[in-house]
Amino acid sequence: MADPAYVAVDWGTSSFRLWLIGKDDSVLAESRGNEGMTTAAKTGFAEVLASHLGKVNAPENLPVIICGMAGAKQGWVEAGYVDVPASLSSILTGAVSVPDQSRDVRILPGLAQRDPARPDVMRGEETQLLGALGPQSTGSQAVCMPGTHSKWVHVKNGRVSGFSSFMTGELFDAISKHTILSHAIAGADQSPADEAAFGSAVKTAYDRPAMATNLFFTARSGQLLHGLTAAAAQAKISGTLIALEIAGAMSDAGTGVDVTLVAAGRLQGLYEAAFKALSLSYNTIDADTAVRGGLAAAAKTIWPN
Amino acid sequence: MADPAYVAVDWGTSSFRLWLIGKDDSVLAESRGNEGMTTAAKTGFAEVLASHLGKVNAPENLPVIICGMAGAKQGWVEAGYVDVPASLSSILTGAVSVPDQSRDVRILPGLAQRDPARPDVMRGEETQLLGALGPQSTGSQAVCMPGTHSKWVHVKNGRVSGFSSFMTGELFDAISKHTILSHAIAGADQSPADEAAFGSAVKTAYDRPAMATNLFFTARSGQLLHGLTAAAAQAKISGTLIALEIAGAMSDAGTGVDVTLVAAGRLQGLYEAAFKALSLSYNTIDADTAVRGGLAAAAKTIWPN
Repeated sequence: MADPAYVAVDWGTSSFRLWLIGKDDSVLAESRGNEGMTTAAKTGFAEVLASHLGKVNAPENLPVIICGMAGAKQGWVEAGYVDVPASLSSILTGAVSVPDQSRDVRILPGLAQRDPARPDVMRGEETQLLGALGPQSTGSQAVCMPGTHSKWVHVKNGRVSGFSSFMTGELFDAISKHTILSHAIAGADQSPADEAAFGSAVKTAYDRPAMATNLFFTARSGQLLHGLTAAAAQAKISGTLIALEIAGAMSDAGTGVDVTLVAAGRLQGLYEAAFKALSLSYNTIDADTAVRGGLAAAAKTIWPN
Repeated sequence: MADPAYVAVDWGTSSFRLWLIGKDDSVLAESRGNEGMTTAAKTGFAEVLASHLGKVNAPENLPVIICGMAGAKQGWVEAGYVDVPASLSSILTGAVSVPDQSRDVRILPGLAQRDPARPDVMRGEETQLLGALGPQSTGSQAVCMPGTHSKWVHVKNGRVSGFSSFMTGELFDAISKHTILSHAIAGADQSPADEAAFGSAVKTAYDRPAMATNLFFTARSGQLLHGLTAAAAQAKISGTLIALEIAGAMSDAGTGVDVTLVAAGRLQGLYEAAFKALSLSYNTIDADTAVRGGLAAAAKTIWPN
């Protein structure tokens, strides 16, 4: 087993993931928890980090590189934003040091788009992006990072020209739990078992995005009039939201753009099914691999050799 | 004061409104309450009606005409649906009698659109529609009835060709209360005081409906980066949802269509501001006047003179 080189941490709003990384770039050990920013803001960031470092037996003095909400204003130490347009490599150089620690702990900045007509922010996804494309990418890319607030980033020759957040995941949750449609989908699994209904909803909403809030309602009226199943109703809501996001993002992307999906698990399956339904070509990069890649690029810039 | 001719009732999911109507069509007395279908299903429909009839001193044997959710499957007596396409006047003839009452009580049917690609239902709005246009209207109309589930109905020469429900009101509620945007709008009044932000959101979402869930997010990112006020954030959410609805409905309406808004109060103000921002011409009919007009047309058909 290689000697440890550094510790990589992805610290989100509601999740914590830490990897002990070897000098040969291999993952030596991993520790996950639910002490995201919201929890850690109450119990203490230093204590959460120390507990996970203990679990992987991280040597004293081993440096730690962190991305995500730990760098937010409500986080551990505010890491600010790099303003777009910006080169991907500029993310690498904006890390802030956490003061008064026994070891070197740094937090990477987020990205901000200050255009008053399209203000946007991200924290954590910029590191995934860096890992997915590498600091010196070429060509035109549209990178899709699905989630609670999905991010679509437009990159040309290693430079982020702009990005947009879509509230897809959070709206799916709010619609499923807090509207009349909660009855329509009661009992359905979280992953749409009804692939035909999902694909059909994706195509319908992509062609006519303005009908989105009507398409939601048909999950209920379809049940009243045609006995639509709960699984099909859920697939309709999910497919409509995802297609709305893709339609919006692709209208920003222009032509000749390569679509890269950075995802894992259930969301990877849903977005791949949506791209297939729309005959859009794409390539997928695993989200964990991407964030570790971005953290590795930062670690090697900050602590060379 | 004229002699009473009949009692008109608009019985919704969460509201109850009753009018004592004179032989000269004037409103002799009114009684309102919050015993909508949901409440009445527990406490008894006959008891709720009797209590309000007592409040307006309705003579024994005076007949009662009802529209709305009292005719739903979970209501008092199921009044079924008239299937579209259908003439407006066919609504008048589909009323069902409530059995075992000391007086003649009838409930009007709803409308159903059974097209499997666009299933839809309404209960109550069909009566507003009838009152707004009259049973023998001419020309092409798009009638907008905003609410929890806004309805847009397309009518040509007195015949309903189709309609669509949009979950505008309910989504505004779910987004305002159950997403991260609840923080962005905390403290704002329910009516957008920020008319400029509302008009700008309406135009932006109407031009690019696929960006809707991104525009919602900018209510938060605009606050983070530019100190957007809570009133402006709320206006942005509301304007985006209303514009999405109008964009969808107008894409169904085709050209040369007269837009009629059937609304009152806060919603009337919001939709009128949206139509003005989009330079769409419209005429407004008061929602109460419209529903009483529809109930009057039904009463006169069922109980001539």
